[in-house]
Amino acid sequence: MAQLNFRIGDFETNSSKIVDSIQKAKVRGAALVVFPELAVCGYPPLDFLEFDDFILRTENALQHIANQCIGIAAIVGAPCRNTGDKGKPLFNAAAFCYNGTVEYFHKGLLPNYDVFDEYRYFEPAKSFKTLHFNGLKIALTICEDIWDLGQSRLYTIDPMETLARDKPDLMINIAASPFHYHQARRRHEVLKANVEKYRIPLIYVNHVGAQTELIFDGGSTALCANAMVGKSLPYFEEALEVVDTKDLLSGKNSLDPAFDNKTSLIHDALVMGIRDYFSKMGFRKAVLGLSGGIDSAVTMVLAVKALGNENVTGLLMPSQFSSDHSVADAQTLANNLNSPSHTIPIKDSYLAIEQSLGPVFEGTSFGLTEENIQARLRGLILMAYANKYNHILLNTSNKSEAAVGYGTLYGDMNGGLSVLGDVYKTEVYELARYINKDAEVIPLNSILKPPSAELRPGQLDSDSLPEYEVLDRMLFHYIEEQLGPGDLIERGFDPSMVQRMLKMVNTNEYKRKQTPPILRVSPKAFGMGRRMPIVAKYLT
Amino acid sequence: MAQLNFRIGDFETNSSKIVDSIQKAKVRGAALVVFPELAVCGYPPLDFLEFDDFILRTENALQHIANQCIGIAAIVGAPCRNTGDKGKPLFNAAAFCYNGTVEYFHKGLLPNYDVFDEYRYFEPAKSFKTLHFNGLKIALTICEDIWDLGQSRLYTIDPMETLARDKPDLMINIAASPFHYHQARRRHEVLKANVEKYRIPLIYVNHVGAQTELIFDGGSTALCANAMVGKSLPYFEEALEVVDTKDLLSGKNSLDPAFDNKTSLIHDALVMGIRDYFSKMGFRKAVLGLSGGIDSAVTMVLAVKALGNENVTGLLMPSQFSSDHSVADAQTLANNLNSPSHTIPIKDSYLAIEQSLGPVFEGTSFGLTEENIQARLRGLILMAYANKYNHILLNTSNKSEAAVGYGTLYGDMNGGLSVLGDVYKTEVYELARYINKDAEVIPLNSILKPPSAELRPGQLDSDSLPEYEVLDRMLFHYIEEQLGPGDLIERGFDPSMVQRMLKMVNTNEYKRKQTPPILRVSPKAFGMGRRMPIVAKYLT
Repeated sequence: MAQLNFRIGDFETNSSKIVDSIQKAKVRGAALVVFPELAVCGYPPLDFLEFDDFILRTENALQHIANQCIGIAAIVGAPCRNTGDKGKPLFNAAAFCYNGTVEYFHKGLLPNYDVFDEYRYFEPAKSFKTLHFNGLKIALTICEDIWDLGQSRLYTIDPMETLARDKPDLMINIAASPFHYHQARRRHEVLKANVEKYRIPLIYVNHVGAQTELIFDGGSTALCANAMVGKSLPYFEEALEVVDTKDLLSGKNSLDPAFDNKTSLIHDALVMGIRDYFSKMGFRKAVLGLSGGIDSAVTMVLAVKALGNENVTGLLMPSQFSSDHSVADAQTLANNLNSPSHTIPIKDSYLAIEQSLGPVFEGTSFGLTEENIQARLRGLILMAYANKYNHILLNTSNKSEAAVGYGTLYGDMNGGLSVLGDVYKTEVYELARYINKDAEVIPLNSILKPPSAELRPGQLDSDSLPEYEVLDRMLFHYIEEQLGPGDLIERGFDPSMVQRMLKMVNTNEYKRKQTPPILRVSPKAFGMGRRMPIVAKYLT
Repeated sequence: MAQLNFRIGDFETNSSKIVDSIQKAKVRGAALVVFPELAVCGYPPLDFLEFDDFILRTENALQHIANQCIGIAAIVGAPCRNTGDKGKPLFNAAAFCYNGTVEYFHKGLLPNYDVFDEYRYFEPAKSFKTLHFNGLKIALTICEDIWDLGQSRLYTIDPMETLARDKPDLMINIAASPFHYHQARRRHEVLKANVEKYRIPLIYVNHVGAQTELIFDGGSTALCANAMVGKSLPYFEEALEVVDTKDLLSGKNSLDPAFDNKTSLIHDALVMGIRDYFSKMGFRKAVLGLSGGIDSAVTMVLAVKALGNENVTGLLMPSQFSSDHSVADAQTLANNLNSPSHTIPIKDSYLAIEQSLGPVFEGTSFGLTEENIQARLRGLILMAYANKYNHILLNTSNKSEAAVGYGTLYGDMNGGLSVLGDVYKTEVYELARYINKDAEVIPLNSILKPPSAELRPGQLDSDSLPEYEVLDRMLFHYIEEQLGPGDLIERGFDPSMVQRMLKMVNTNEYKRKQTPPILRVSPKAFGMGRRMPIVAKYLT
């Protein structure tokens, strides 16, 4: 079982990794090495799949891999061409490589919801065959193929049900199953249900590593015929493990599955998400604005865990509205982490800009425009620092803010990557407490004080938003559960608050269009998995 | 034939528009009114389709419409529920409304490529039936259903072929077919091919109006049984026209189809795109930065045509690197258009920012960071003006720049809408000449001088990019035609230029992730129709 972190389109690195694992597995006595879905090209390749050159390179890499499979076999995910005269030009396939040959097995159930667009590229398989290898009949499937179990109503066929007629000895499923905080538990339930239904062992191999917004948590598993766990690979790291199919068939050495709690899963996922984004973009260093508030504090701690304390720089950019305690809290955090920080006051620049705008702004008074100028000036300084010293700016907005548009485009919404954009404010507090469980890394004051953007004197989030406890529950029902206003009011939310907040969510779609990619940790994140019209008039 | 401009999710306005057209058509003696695909909810509704509340509102609006169809029938596009026990929860349907009843006809071919995601929401129809009305057997289909003609290899079924077995008298197709500069001609070819194949008339009704990036050009058509045009509705405007099916069957009063040239089509599409974005977002006024260059000049002229000269404000923001002629050209343009303009020099603000960064930038020299600061300062001032006076900032970047990442995030890449982001630089020149065909609206100097960002002394685009004639041809092959590097070199492009430019295109995906929505005028625009990984290592 080879649970690896691949790079999209980097055929050379991916195929060396694969060949290297095959050779290691051979030394350890394995007969077959299983790699994840679309391993050769990386996942998700998106519209690169429409380039013939990209497919050619995949085919060449796969042939190279097959040529290394001498006396050992490998199952490797790869796109393959649809040579029939109808349908999409590709299949999503599991390539069985053995002694220089490649045999393809096609995916039947193509997810096309949330973050998935597989019908964009692939034709679904209509027929299914078992793989015969080493005296075993293997039902070889790809991710979604075994996920449905005829339970949802999405699909009209059931690949595993068809394969079961062949009476296979073993199921193998290769996957690219993105993380969210309930996915590990749900995945185990699905795998277990398959084993309980077909009463044969199941070997499941998943991707690990982050691909921009999508995080793959690994957690590859081999289940014994009795549905107990026979082998369990780690979460959030690469692993190569040998599993003995005889043990799976007999059910000995079985383990209890273990699942971390939601906050710790989010924490680990975000750390890997930051680390992989930087390494895959070819960067080592991050910069972010430190306001003394909880969002920037949590972001900085996660970045330090991902990149190392010396590689994360905090900029303090006080204005005339910044409170003394904010500056002190920000400085304490940087000191606690032993990370570099600089203070760059924005007052003089702000006054120069205001002066240049004087003639066109004559007769107007301080308002939202001036608040935004401060946020944008900070965004400008952060980007200048990032440009000058080859850093990536980390965005510190949370999901509650992103939802209601409580942020300034080209200001605090700047960044190469949004760390907390899929984490509600109330969950940010949980992360902060989790981070502080052994020591006060984040100053308690940042956790305890009422949230404020500090863009005018005495400003508090609660001036314009409901309490986050209430707001976040309502947003969860609307965004994750897609409830309408009637359902929300029925659940006890104040009707005028519901109307005002849903209007804010929907009219701020234009801002979310321009946000950085957001690390996805929930079942419904802003980004590729949630597609909304900008010019619309629904609930506004 | 009711070719209307709908608003997504605005059920009240959409159904009043529909009912109003039904009443007008009744007065004019029509028996049946045909509206476009998904007219009731607007197109594209995207993930609003996943909200039960949204579907309920569609159903209520449709029932209201059906109740108004007394003594007259209507065909209206709307989503409808899949009441079967398998498949996606909705169909994309044509609702036949008559005397208070609604009968649904389901779409069979669901486009799921480029800007289309119909498999995300809809189950494809597997069986098809003709509509019997007023003594006629009607083959009623939806957009893509008649588009394929078994010519492409995308689909495994052919709805019109199935319906033809019923020997219909007439075809009706309702559509939401987005504009690009070849689409009107291509659409006519497809409609004509259907009529030539089945030898019966065809009534085709399309959306008109822009929905953020997607532009619908109308051009609804009725073709006679002899494949001549019997009735032709205008492009880029709403229309309600009565067509006599007897005339279509006999083929009298037939017209020649007329197609405008590419540049004039792009011009008209962009003007409508700007106008609809503003009206649908509830704004009347635009602001943009005027550099004296051709991109901002063309954008300003298009905006003036869309919104009126008094509603478009140009800001001149010279720095120490701005040439005198740039400022003069920008001012001449605003004068020619009789539009408001203001000059806001950025030098003092720039120096204040540089001074605040002095301690952290000590020992470094002027470079890209400082160029970006100027661009971002201009972006900040434009947004301040937009915020203060309730304007939308128009982005002026062109497609060549967007492709190679020749632009500053949070600087000149700012804006609520990108007007030229799907128009290559060489096409911007064609637009400028087209605009100037009767008079010198855009100063000739803006057209003739070599392009420059003017962010350092003597800077020219050609310092870092190939000539636009060469670059744009290469980009077209890569972006629109998806050719690989080998094909490009085979076509005579310099290998090192190909490698350098493709690397620029692919590594700048992170910038395009954060750009404003781009009005789509080509078959492959940056935005929802082109989805690329950010962390990838393909051709980089």
